[in-house]
Amino acid sequence: MTTIPIPEGSPFGLANLPYGVFSSPGGAPRVGVRAGDSVVDLARALGDEVFARPSLNAFMAQGHERWAEVRSRVTEMVSGEVPGDAVFAVDAVTLHLPFEVADYVDFYASEHHASNLGRLFRPDAEPLMPNWKHLPVGYHGRAGTVVVSGTGIVRPRGQRKAPADAAPTFGECRRLDIEAELGFVVGTGSLLGTPIGCDDFARHVFGAVLVNDWSARDIQAWEYVPLGPFLGKSFATSVSPWVVPLAALEHARVPTPPQDPEPLPYLRESAPWGLDVDLAVEWNGEVVSRPPYREMYWSPAQMLAHLTVNGASARTGDLYASGTISGPAREQRGAFIELTWGGKEPVKVNGEERTFLEDGDEVVISATAPGPDGARIGFGDVRGRVLPAAH
Amino acid sequence: MTTIPIPEGSPFGLANLPYGVFSSPGGAPRVGVRAGDSVVDLARALGDEVFARPSLNAFMAQGHERWAEVRSRVTEMVSGEVPGDAVFAVDAVTLHLPFEVADYVDFYASEHHASNLGRLFRPDAEPLMPNWKHLPVGYHGRAGTVVVSGTGIVRPRGQRKAPADAAPTFGECRRLDIEAELGFVVGTGSLLGTPIGCDDFARHVFGAVLVNDWSARDIQAWEYVPLGPFLGKSFATSVSPWVVPLAALEHARVPTPPQDPEPLPYLRESAPWGLDVDLAVEWNGEVVSRPPYREMYWSPAQMLAHLTVNGASARTGDLYASGTISGPAREQRGAFIELTWGGKEPVKVNGEERTFLEDGDEVVISATAPGPDGARIGFGDVRGRVLPAAH
Repeated sequence: MTTIPIPEGSPFGLANLPYGVFSSPGGAPRVGVRAGDSVVDLARALGDEVFARPSLNAFMAQGHERWAEVRSRVTEMVSGEVPGDAVFAVDAVTLHLPFEVADYVDFYASEHHASNLGRLFRPDAEPLMPNWKHLPVGYHGRAGTVVVSGTGIVRPRGQRKAPADAAPTFGECRRLDIEAELGFVVGTGSLLGTPIGCDDFARHVFGAVLVNDWSARDIQAWEYVPLGPFLGKSFATSVSPWVVPLAALEHARVPTPPQDPEPLPYLRESAPWGLDVDLAVEWNGEVVSRPPYREMYWSPAQMLAHLTVNGASARTGDLYASGTISGPAREQRGAFIELTWGGKEPVKVNGEERTFLEDGDEVVISATAPGPDGARIGFGDVRGRVLPAAH
Repeated sequence: MTTIPIPEGSPFGLANLPYGVFSSPGGAPRVGVRAGDSVVDLARALGDEVFARPSLNAFMAQGHERWAEVRSRVTEMVSGEVPGDAVFAVDAVTLHLPFEVADYVDFYASEHHASNLGRLFRPDAEPLMPNWKHLPVGYHGRAGTVVVSGTGIVRPRGQRKAPADAAPTFGECRRLDIEAELGFVVGTGSLLGTPIGCDDFARHVFGAVLVNDWSARDIQAWEYVPLGPFLGKSFATSVSPWVVPLAALEHARVPTPPQDPEPLPYLRESAPWGLDVDLAVEWNGEVVSRPPYREMYWSPAQMLAHLTVNGASARTGDLYASGTISGPAREQRGAFIELTWGGKEPVKVNGEERTFLEDGDEVVISATAPGPDGARIGFGDVRGRVLPAAH
C-alpha cells in the first residue's frame, strides 16, 4: 500500500477527483481517477471490472447513487492508503477520450457571444434573434469527430465565398478559429417521450469537461443558411481528458445572470446551476482571453431540460456543450473571431499581430472553479495544435 | 433443407435480398435476409457468428468485398436450398432497428422541396439560398432517436410562436408533419483527415433505407434561426427495417437532373448515382403523394463526398438521409407542409379535409425501384402512428 502525495494548492485535490481513461505503457485503456499528480487505476484499487474498460460509459450508466458511493470510497482511499500497483504518475501514462460520445449537441448560451456573432455574421440585422431569450438555442454536432485533448487538428478544406467573390472556391480554411466551451456529459439517459426537468439535472449529468469547438469561419459563413453549421464545425471538437464530477462543482454553483423575460415553466430551476468557472485561453503559450462561465445566460440544467422537452431521449455518453463562453469585456471573449472582431482588430501574440490560426499554432484552454475551504477545482486543459491541410 | 417460395412479381425477389435484424418468439435479435415472404437466419444458414448479433454493424464493417461475397452466397442459397430451421415467415417475426446509428445527417437535396420550404418559411426572400446549387446543404440530427418502422410517434411538446403572437407559448405541436426521404447507411468508415471521393461511394455505403423525418413545423419555425432545426426534428426519425444493398440498386442508377453551375471538382461523379426510386406516401391508407427520387438535385455519392471533404471521419453505422423528396407536381410532394401549402390548401384523406397530422393518424411510406429483367426492388415500408402528447 502507498499514500498519494497531494501538493499544497493542487487543483486535483480531494475535493476534485476527476475521472478519465488512461493506459500505461503496454497496458489496455482503463478508468482512472486523478489525485494530485497521480492516476489511480480504479479496477485495480476497487476490484471492480466496470472500471477495466476503455470508457467511462458503463460506470456512468450505473446511476447517480452509485457515482456518490464510488466518490466516497475513492475519497477515503486517496486520503488513506492505495494499493501501490494501482498508482501511476500522470506524466507516465497516455490519456484517452474518456467516454464514448453518443449524441453531441452544441448550445449558444452566452449572450455576449451570440450578440457578437450576430453583429459579425449579420451586420444589417438585430444581433440577437427573437427566440434567443426564450430558449437555449442549440444544434446537433458530429459525435464521431469528438477527439481527446492533444489530438492534432488538420486544417480543414472546403467551400468558402467572400462577399466580394462571384462564386465559391474550394481550398484550405483561411479563418480557422476556436470556441472555448464547457461540456456536460450525460451519465444516465431517459426514455423516448420522457423529458428531464431542470431539477433532475444532477441525477442525469455525470460531470463536465472543457471543450474546444474548432470552427472554420469561412466555410461556416457560406454554408450555414438555412440549416445551421455543418462542415465548418464537424472536422474536430476537442475535449479535456478529465471529467470533473458534478459533485465537485457544488461550491461553484451561482445564479445565472437575470433572465428577462421570465423563462417558460419548464425552464425554471428551483436551485441555480450557473457555474463560477474561470477559463483561460492560451495561444502559443500566451494567455489572450479569460472567459467567465458565470456570465452564461442559460444554465446547463436548462439546456438539458430544453434538449429533452420534446420527448427526445438522452443516452449515456451524450455530450452537450455550452457554446462559446464570452464575457462583456474584450479580453473575456472565447473565440478569436470575436476577440479580433472578424480579423479587423488583431491581437498581439508573443509580440506578433495575429487574427486567425496559422499552421503550427497551439491553443490550450484551461479552467478552475472554487471548491470548499478556498480550494480550487481544476479541469486540467484541452489542447490542440494546428497541422497543415492534407493534400 | 427447404426451398423458399418467391411469389411471382415479389419486390423481395433474388435481385433484392435486403438485410435486417429480426427475432422469433423467445429468440434474441439477429441478422436476417428477406426473400419473398420469408426471412433467412444468416447465422444459422451460413454458420457465421457475425450475423448472430442485434445489428448489422459488425458485418457492415467487414467491407465491400465481403458484402459481395455474402450476397453471392445468399443468392445461391436462396435459389437452391436453405436449412429448414433457418427460415421464418416474415409475419411471424419481430423486426428491429437494423443497425446502430453512429452519426445521423439530414440533407436537403430536392430543389423542389427546398424552393417550396423557402417560400413557406421566408416568404419575403429568394426561396433558394445562394449556396444551394453549390453544395448539398445538410445538418446533423439526433442519432439516439432514430427508431424502427412501427414505433409509435408521441406528439412532441415545445415552444411555438405564431407571427401574430406576442410571445411564445408552450404546448403540443399543432403542425406535426412527415418528410419522405431515402437514407444511406455507411458500412465502412474513413479516418479523420481522409475525405471519401464521389467515386468511392460504393466502397463505403452498404445500402439504403426509407426514412420518415417527422417534423414539428411550429416548433421548427420558432427555433431554427440561426443554427438550424433542433427540437422540431429530434423527437423521432423512423427508418424501414430492411436495408436494400447498394448492389440491388444497380438498375436504378440514373443521372441526376442537370447541375448548373457545374459543381466544384470534389462533387463531380464519373458515373451517375442518381436513383430511379418511386415512393408512395399513404395517409390513413390513402396514397396522397408519389415522390420521385430521380428528381433529387444532389446524388448520395455527392452527399458523402461533401460530408467528408473537410476531413470529418465517417463510421460504420453513419446514416445520412436525402432530405424530403419532392417532385415538381403537387402530388409529388413528400411533406404535408408542401402538399397543403402551409395548411392553407387541405388535401382529401378518406373524404375529409386534412392539413397536418392528428392523433391516431398513420403514415406509411413505401418505395420500389427497377431491377433486372423488369423486376421491381422493394424497400418495404416505414410506418408510424401518431400517439397523443405525454402529460
